[in-house]
Amino acid sequence: MTKANHYGFPDASGIYIFSPSSAIADPLALERATTQLNAMGFKVAVDRTALARHQRFAGTDTQRLAAFSRAIKQKLPIVMASRGGYGITRLLPHLDFKAIADSGKRFIGQSDFTAFNLALLAQTGMVSYAGPTACSDFGAKKPEILTTEIFGESMRGELEILSFETQDADAVDCRGVLWGGNLAMVTALIGTPYMPKIKGGILFVEDVGEHPYRIERMLNQLAQAGILGKQKALLLGGFTEYKLAEHDQGYDLKSVISYIRKTVGIPVITGLPYGHTAMKATLPIGAKIGLATEKGLVHLVLDEHEH
Amino acid sequence: MTKANHYGFPDASGIYIFSPSSAIADPLALERATTQLNAMGFKVAVDRTALARHQRFAGTDTQRLAAFSRAIKQKLPIVMASRGGYGITRLLPHLDFKAIADSGKRFIGQSDFTAFNLALLAQTGMVSYAGPTACSDFGAKKPEILTTEIFGESMRGELEILSFETQDADAVDCRGVLWGGNLAMVTALIGTPYMPKIKGGILFVEDVGEHPYRIERMLNQLAQAGILGKQKALLLGGFTEYKLAEHDQGYDLKSVISYIRKTVGIPVITGLPYGHTAMKATLPIGAKIGLATEKGLVHLVLDEHEH
Repeated sequence: MTKANHYGFPDASGIYIFSPSSAIADPLALERATTQLNAMGFKVAVDRTALARHQRFAGTDTQRLAAFSRAIKQKLPIVMASRGGYGITRLLPHLDFKAIADSGKRFIGQSDFTAFNLALLAQTGMVSYAGPTACSDFGAKKPEILTTEIFGESMRGELEILSFETQDADAVDCRGVLWGGNLAMVTALIGTPYMPKIKGGILFVEDVGEHPYRIERMLNQLAQAGILGKQKALLLGGFTEYKLAEHDQGYDLKSVISYIRKTVGIPVITGLPYGHTAMKATLPIGAKIGLATEKGLVHLVLDEHEH
Repeated sequence: MTKANHYGFPDASGIYIFSPSSAIADPLALERATTQLNAMGFKVAVDRTALARHQRFAGTDTQRLAAFSRAIKQKLPIVMASRGGYGITRLLPHLDFKAIADSGKRFIGQSDFTAFNLALLAQTGMVSYAGPTACSDFGAKKPEILTTEIFGESMRGELEILSFETQDADAVDCRGVLWGGNLAMVTALIGTPYMPKIKGGILFVEDVGEHPYRIERMLNQLAQAGILGKQKALLLGGFTEYKLAEHDQGYDLKSVISYIRKTVGIPVITGLPYGHTAMKATLPIGAKIGLATEKGLVHLVLDEHEH
């Protein structure tokens, strides 16, 4: 049984998997993803170049652009990236964003996919999703149960509030457009026509393999470009797989958070269950949501849009 | 003997060394730098917090800002960074660029220092230099002779043409403002008030420890932000210390260069002797120069400004 999604998407009957970024390393992960998603009640179709390879990419730019075209023409309502990696920024000038928005498909992906999520929002205002990908999440040998459950609830329009614990959050109670994703990809769009111009939004970011000084440099660019200070809150997801060096001498992610708090002056909230981690929420990019903190808990109210 | 520098700087009698970025790891390198620069005929003074440390930085932001203030008040005409690292972008909103330009000092540094070079150009139009730093170059146990010679000639206004061999260059014969530096720092300024707005310029970039896909992503951002296509040429310096992975499957720096040539359509010239390498030219950022290719050689005509 499905009910209408908060953001006007009609149904959650099936998922079309395609590869817009890097090549799939292990075809078995794609098979496991299909099995897992079937078991969750989704029909699944796999794009015919999902397993293509050209250098590090899942096919040439032409092939990956054609996959986008097929994805909006086929019938299943959800379009999911097989994985992240690199390659979408090369495609942005050649995508027909109007046709993509007109298709009414619900796009979901993460990491490199952030470039698409934000470009679609910038060019058309359309909501799409940051969340699990086919191979990296549903194709894992043991998919993270909360990740799959939240994804299912989100697609079926049943997820009204997402609450999580935080160790470090400024008090906040606000509403705004949720946007963001992978921090490196968010900053890679600054100055381009693919960067949404959002004031009073709620920006969330995560990253993998980036040293805290690079995380700080990226947040600082968002601040100095006049973007960060215009948001109502900054939500920090996972920042994983970086190595501190001896010469950091106490400088770490906490130093970065403290520095950003001091210099930007907007509420900062840590602990968002989203990142290059097995546990990741499904988050609607471009949707108006509510955000409130309460006694070590943070609540994202996801059904603000229709009420 | 000194003669007036092409860009109106009065003399090259001495060098003031300061630390605007990361902490100096080895104080002996600073001593060797002083000895080497003395031997080259330069008076040397070292800022009093050049050896300071706060976490990974050469002192707190306040200390490093005070070092800038001292550097423009003291008498030696050249102000040289002790090293790169990270830290200048934190200082940009607090620097008095007008006072810095009014001081008439010749600033030189590289890597993180690119943020200062470009911010000074953006905010005041003043020329400063990308080139060797005290500890990393003059403090090396065996300084690279060409690096030190070109630096000396450049500071004394004797360097009229810098020629280098290239394996891969589009034919070009043009004039324009030379600008750029470390690619990560150039892109970290996009969208901020510290990014120069240069049309018809000659952009040079280098980087260290960045995988070709990240180099491509950064160049792509410069392209999609409308910056790269407005330049008369792109000069590529050293891109060093990155590791290709098996899944790159033939994707490498050559792929990036070929992709950028095809998508941006401006002349691309490789082989610029500048980067995180012992051999590095001293390059005037913000100066109008000439650029011409001829039979596997590239000529940078550095004395265009006054003629």
